[in-house]
Amino acid sequence: MKLRPLHDRVIIKRLEAETKSAGGIVIPDSATEKPVRGEVIAAGAGKILEDGKVRPIAVKAGDKVLFGKYSGTEVKIDGEELLVMREEDLLAVIEA
Amino acid sequence: MKLRPLHDRVIIKRLEAETKSAGGIVIPDSATEKPVRGEVIAAGAGKILEDGKVRPIAVKAGDKVLFGKYSGTEVKIDGEELLVMREEDLLAVIEA
Amino acid sequence: MKLRPLHDRVIIKRLEAETKSAGGIVIPDSATEKPVRGEVIAAGAGKILEDGKVRPIAVKAGDKVLFGKYSGTEVKIDGEELLVMREEDLLAVIEA
Amino acid sequence: MKLRPLHDRVIIKRLEAETKSAGGIVIPDSATEKPVRGEVIAAGAGKILEDGKVRPIAVKAGDKVLFGKYSGTEVKIDGEELLVMREEDLLAVIEA
Amino acid sequence: MKLRPLHDRVIIKRLEAETKSAGGIVIPDSATEKPVRGEVIAAGAGKILEDGKVRPIAVKAGDKVLFGKYSGTEVKIDGEELLVMREEDLLAVIEA
Amino acid sequence: MKLRPLHDRVIIKRLEAETKSAGGIVIPDSATEKPVRGEVIAAGAGKILEDGKVRPIAVKAGDKVLFGKYSGTEVKIDGEELLVMREEDLLAVIEA
Amino acid sequence: MKLRPLHDRVIIKRLEAETKSAGGIVIPDSATEKPVRGEVIAAGAGKILEDGKVRPIAVKAGDKVLFGKYSGTEVKIDGEELLVMREEDLLAVIEA
Repeated sequence: MKLRPLHDRVIIKRLEAETKSAGGIVIPDSATEKPVRGEVIAAGAGKILEDGKVRPIAVKAGDKVLFGKYSGTEVKIDGEELLVMREEDLLAVIEA
Repeated sequence: MKLRPLHDRVIIKRLEAETKSAGGIVIPDSATEKPVRGEVIAAGAGKILEDGKVRPIAVKAGDKVLFGKYSGTEVKIDGEELLVMREEDLLAVIEA
Repeated sequence: MKLRPLHDRVIIKRLEAETKSAGGIVIPDSATEKPVRGEVIAAGAGKILEDGKVRPIAVKAGDKVLFGKYSGTEVKIDGEELLVMREEDLLAVIEA
Repeated sequence: MKLRPLHDRVIIKRLEAETKSAGGIVIPDSATEKPVRGEVIAAGAGKILEDGKVRPIAVKAGDKVLFGKYSGTEVKIDGEELLVMREEDLLAVIEA
Repeated sequence: MKLRPLHDRVIIKRLEAETKSAGGIVIPDSATEKPVRGEVIAAGAGKILEDGKVRPIAVKAGDKVLFGKYSGTEVKIDGEELLVMREEDLLAVIEA
Repeated sequence: MKLRPLHDRVIIKRLEAETKSAGGIVIPDSATEKPVRGEVIAAGAGKILEDGKVRPIAVKAGDKVLFGKYSGTEVKIDGEELLVMREEDLLAVIEA
Repeated sequence: MKLRPLHDRVIIKRLEAETKSAGGIVIPDSATEKPVRGEVIAAGAGKILEDGKVRPIAVKAGDKVLFGKYSGTEVKIDGEELLVMREEDLLAVIEA
């Protein structure tokens, strides 16, 4: 099943979080930590502005992103849990 | 009875959800899963902008769409349950 | 008593709802069903936009419309129950 | 005491409501009926728009109007109960 | 101490209310009556609009005005109780 | 430590309030009186408008101002209690 | 892990607060003091305005800033606690 998000919405797949301490010890995210990482699966064409022009979305499929834990709507597609949220809800792109 | 939605509203018929697990086993949506799928029955002419122009709706009759479980107003027309919601409430188009 | 709604308001008279099942059996709307049908009795001249222009209302007297159960303000005029609501609160026009 | 309402405000004097049934029997409004009728005593010069222009008010002194029961602020002027509300709160003009 | 209100704010001194019944009997405002009268002590230069222009305030020092009982912020200046509110909160000018 | 407020924010130092009654008797502000006086320590460059222009702030360092008791965010800088608030929260300039 | 904040968001690392009294005695911030200091780790390209132009952010990486205690979303990146917030939530730049 293929999804095409509308306007300024993006579809995100959560990523398992694995963080390293300063000393290099791997510390998995605890269940109580709120922000989450994800990969953009699909992005809409952009937000339609008041004058009718479209403002493209600043992320694209494949980008790793950071967002708040309670952002977006959960959808289950082909047995897979995905998130649909607005570009507005994305906090940052993880570049490396 | 034929309905013509006003402005940026769309009329949706819910679709029975049937999902497959990664291994191909069919898993019906449980009643507790929030997002829903539907088919667009009719779409309005579009949202009227502040300058009087009309911004057409990005979906059309026949499109399969994804929306949040609590979106829209339920209406019963000719014994059939339909949903009237704004284009704004649609999350994505299901393309295949 | 004749009412002229102001700006983007419309006056609606509720219509008794009668729906047919797929097999043709008439099922009256139960009291618990929220959306309602009505006939437009009068419509305002339209919404005044920020630049002073008037955006005409998309319905006219005689149109059958669909609206949410809790929309509008109830008024009793000449012993008759009417509803005054904004064009914004109308969901769809019933065309046949 | 003479009042000049500011901008888009109007001063209203409530009117005793008297309604007739379809058969001509006079039925006084019960205390529990929410909308009310009134006469416009004075109207402001109009709403000042963002570009500095003034949008005149669509009613004038002497007009009979319909409004929601809880609209406006009650003021007692020279022993008389009046209502000050915005043009926005007026539902319709009673024309006959 | 002299106060210069900023932008669209006005400084008001409450006026003792004294109302006459239709028959000429003086009836002092009871403590439970909500709207209040006052005299404008000072008015700001006006509201700054989005394009940078200033929209002058429609009242000036010396004007008698009507406002809602809970409008504005109470300030005590030189032992005198004053009110600072926005022009928006003023209902009407008392002209005589 | 020197602070440069951003955009339309101002930094305020509360002033001890001392008021005189009409007869000249000094009455200190009681703890229950809400509005407060202060001195502007620093003011931002101004609010950035939608078109990118900057609207300068109407007060400057050294100005005595009046504001609501609960306005702003308290900050402790070099052991000194200061307030950071928006120009919007300032009620009036105390001129003498 | 490198983060690129989107649009008008900034990434902040909290700074240990150490304040001096007027007499030079060092007073550490108590846990109950709300505002906080931080260093900007990264800043987005700026807020996209309605006309599509970008308004650059007024702070840059390395700037010391002041913000409210409850501003922003906490994120844990490589074992380090960071804050992602909007430029709007920044109160002032600490210049010395």
